[in-house]
Amino acid sequence: MQFKGRDIVSIKDFSREEIDYILKTAASMEQIAKQGSDMLHGKILATLFFEPSTRTRLSFESAMNKLGGTAIGFAEPKVAAIKKGENLADTIRVVENYADVMVLRHPLEGAARLAAEFAKVPVINAGSGAEEHPTQALLDLYTILKEKGTIDGLNITLMGDLRYGRTVHSLAYALSLYNVKLFLVSPELLRMRREVSDAIKQKITVVEASAVEDVLAETDVLYVTRIQEERFPDPTEYTKVSGTYKIDLKTLKDAKEDMIIMHPLPRVDEIDHEVDNTPHARYFQQVWNGIVTRTALLALILGAKK
Amino acid sequence: MQFKGRDIVSIKDFSREEIDYILKTAASMEQIAKQGSDMLHGKILATLFFEPSTRTRLSFESAMNKLGGTAIGFAEPKVAAIKKGENLADTIRVVENYADVMVLRHPLEGAARLAAEFAKVPVINAGSGAEEHPTQALLDLYTILKEKGTIDGLNITLMGDLRYGRTVHSLAYALSLYNVKLFLVSPELLRMRREVSDAIKQKITVVEASAVEDVLAETDVLYVTRIQEERFPDPTEYTKVSGTYKIDLKTLKDAKEDMIIMHPLPRVDEIDHEVDNTPHARYFQQVWNGIVTRTALLALILGAKK
Amino acid sequence: MQFKGRDIVSIKDFSREEIDYILKTAASMEQIAKQGSDMLHGKILATLFFEPSTRTRLSFESAMNKLGGTAIGFAEPKVAAIKKGENLADTIRVVENYADVMVLRHPLEGAARLAAEFAKVPVINAGSGAEEHPTQALLDLYTILKEKGTIDGLNITLMGDLRYGRTVHSLAYALSLYNVKLFLVSPELLRMRREVSDAIKQKITVVEASAVEDVLAETDVLYVTRIQEERFPDPTEYTKVSGTYKIDLKTLKDAKEDMIIMHPLPRVDEIDHEVDNTPHARYFQQVWNGIVTRTALLALILGAKK
Repeated sequence: MQFKGRDIVSIKDFSREEIDYILKTAASMEQIAKQGSDMLHGKILATLFFEPSTRTRLSFESAMNKLGGTAIGFAEPKVAAIKKGENLADTIRVVENYADVMVLRHPLEGAARLAAEFAKVPVINAGSGAEEHPTQALLDLYTILKEKGTIDGLNITLMGDLRYGRTVHSLAYALSLYNVKLFLVSPELLRMRREVSDAIKQKITVVEASAVEDVLAETDVLYVTRIQEERFPDPTEYTKVSGTYKIDLKTLKDAKEDMIIMHPLPRVDEIDHEVDNTPHARYFQQVWNGIVTRTALLALILGAKK
Repeated sequence: MQFKGRDIVSIKDFSREEIDYILKTAASMEQIAKQGSDMLHGKILATLFFEPSTRTRLSFESAMNKLGGTAIGFAEPKVAAIKKGENLADTIRVVENYADVMVLRHPLEGAARLAAEFAKVPVINAGSGAEEHPTQALLDLYTILKEKGTIDGLNITLMGDLRYGRTVHSLAYALSLYNVKLFLVSPELLRMRREVSDAIKQKITVVEASAVEDVLAETDVLYVTRIQEERFPDPTEYTKVSGTYKIDLKTLKDAKEDMIIMHPLPRVDEIDHEVDNTPHARYFQQVWNGIVTRTALLALILGAKK
Repeated sequence: MQFKGRDIVSIKDFSREEIDYILKTAASMEQIAKQGSDMLHGKILATLFFEPSTRTRLSFESAMNKLGGTAIGFAEPKVAAIKKGENLADTIRVVENYADVMVLRHPLEGAARLAAEFAKVPVINAGSGAEEHPTQALLDLYTILKEKGTIDGLNITLMGDLRYGRTVHSLAYALSLYNVKLFLVSPELLRMRREVSDAIKQKITVVEASAVEDVLAETDVLYVTRIQEERFPDPTEYTKVSGTYKIDLKTLKDAKEDMIIMHPLPRVDEIDHEVDNTPHARYFQQVWNGIVTRTALLALILGAKK
């Protein structure tokens, strides 16, 4: 398998075999992520955030530093050259001279693909439009594999905003490469986009439900996402819905003992804080797994040797 | 004494013996701070500034770089995840995965304490509310010790805004562990908060005065702070006061020859620029001492060996 | 020649002999800029951008990282201490304690000179007012030399906004040290400032023209700059002018085969994208040459040994 020099734009660009290899590499990086290393000494990561995302940006910078490399970049469009009217292709052809790899977040769908086409160095998509967030999907898979020992054979529930959340789109595509049963739980207005659900239904069993209680007893992994008020034309509609799509101790009374709860964070109140101390909670472990997965990706696409 | 893994939230958490040990360690770091070192190679500092403070942030980042470590973080709340409504405890439980130590500045009192309770890694308080700024107090003590050879036996005057300045609160507590005489010089409206002055009066002699001229001839260390216009309901009141609490060559004519003048910076016009070239001025040396003290603190709480 | 400890404030501070030495050093740094080095391990660069400029800031940070050093700083005045009313001299006397060299961009002419006078460490001017941008001039010279093998004997055309562009002022001064013929092509309103054109006319042949077509056939190097709408009191005037001062394939039909086109970037539409793929385009190579030139400057003023 060839990873050196490769872009990470969409999870759809990767075969199951390749994803398995990335997950295996991640597992082998746990110690390195803990202790630090000089694997990427002298290498530079550029973080280009045309849309703010502190946690994703810091996660990549931390991963790069843990491998002995350095990071430069910008955290906000306002500071960026684009203010002067420069187009993205020009920005990319400038920044590729500064760095060995670049991480891009952009409000427009297709931005990461365009950047990858122009850049001489590998481009990692850290979220473009409502479309894709492939490294989040990979760290989610890594978390499931690490916690359950397998992905195949699991019943996985995606709950919340399945329409606008780029995280769940990338994750759903990735899960469709495995032998899983997928429950989709969301309000009517925030159902999984048709193009995503059509594509994954050709590969795996997908069951749509409107209440988490209907599927919880069967669920091995419950993946919760935030429902944003601004998605609703009517605030009272939002209040009704957000009260329903909420996990607390009462919701969990029928859950399997070893069911795990994941969340891409930040959460607001869709998971009650009393759940944090139950053996189900894994959302903060996901953050660490993100560091591990990103060290693996950086090492692979920069061709680092241990 | 145990420093490894320890939080630095309040100067009140440290005994005189511990503070003396920190100051001794700082003295031993002068050369390292000048020449650089790899003591913290592979370690990562996260700077979480929910309130901007360029100089404090850069001071910590410089100290970390001088020890061979790296720094990641954010400089402004606007960029931070908290914008999406996440609470501080969640932010801390995310960031602790990215870094080996974190430095926090926050507008709310108690924020640093809360962060320290949640974080698995040590937390350094770089200012929370109007309450505390312990590393500034430590660098101030280090400056006094370095310049005067001792802290015990000195007459120290704190002047300016003693009510809202977190710097002077932490410093007053720290000085009360030593055998000093403290003069407090401030306008009526900006007197030292009762809870602070009550606490320190139990340990040391404290004399309140309204004019610096009354105490200057006895003073060994004159610590000046800025009086901010926004503290005064009436602008004419501010103008009157700020003209009075100002140090210039004329004020200094009765000063001891070896009196030193300190200031946490930035200054506006409370110290006239003509004072910069007198042998009294030490406020720019304080900045360097801040680097030295912070390298010592980072080395101690991360358990670094030279 | 003595470079260690030297400020880089104005291109006018350097003799031709010194500039040639910088360009020669840059040529010797090409490999190091590609592969990375530890020449400046342990050294810290402070980037003080009182005016945003993502590309210049990242270029310096990348250059510093490529030499094994680290960078700290701020990208926006809003975040900076100056907000609290501190003057620049105080800021400089603070930051000089954090870093071994500082890079300053400031909206006011003279700011870099003032900073250099106060700072104990070397100051590099990354643009002050409409006046000077010396490192851009050096990378432009390096690009010409690398591409044409010589600077002497060339016909060089500067086109666009010659009045407000700090880049062209520094470049024109630098070119006047060489044996070149200079064509200046600009709208009436944006003619080269009198003090610059008077100075360079004493040294080299300068021809002012209002249409690039009049000089293109003779031109070896065509240096294009952006014309900004806000320079024109009347928007229709701008539209007329910006349509004229534009390079596309049609403009280029009379160009020498080996003529090169340069641009300090960002471009908006003054060079048509169809020109990017012609053998004339060198504006993206300039970005790389900027990294190389800045590694050379950092190495020289910090006295690094290979």
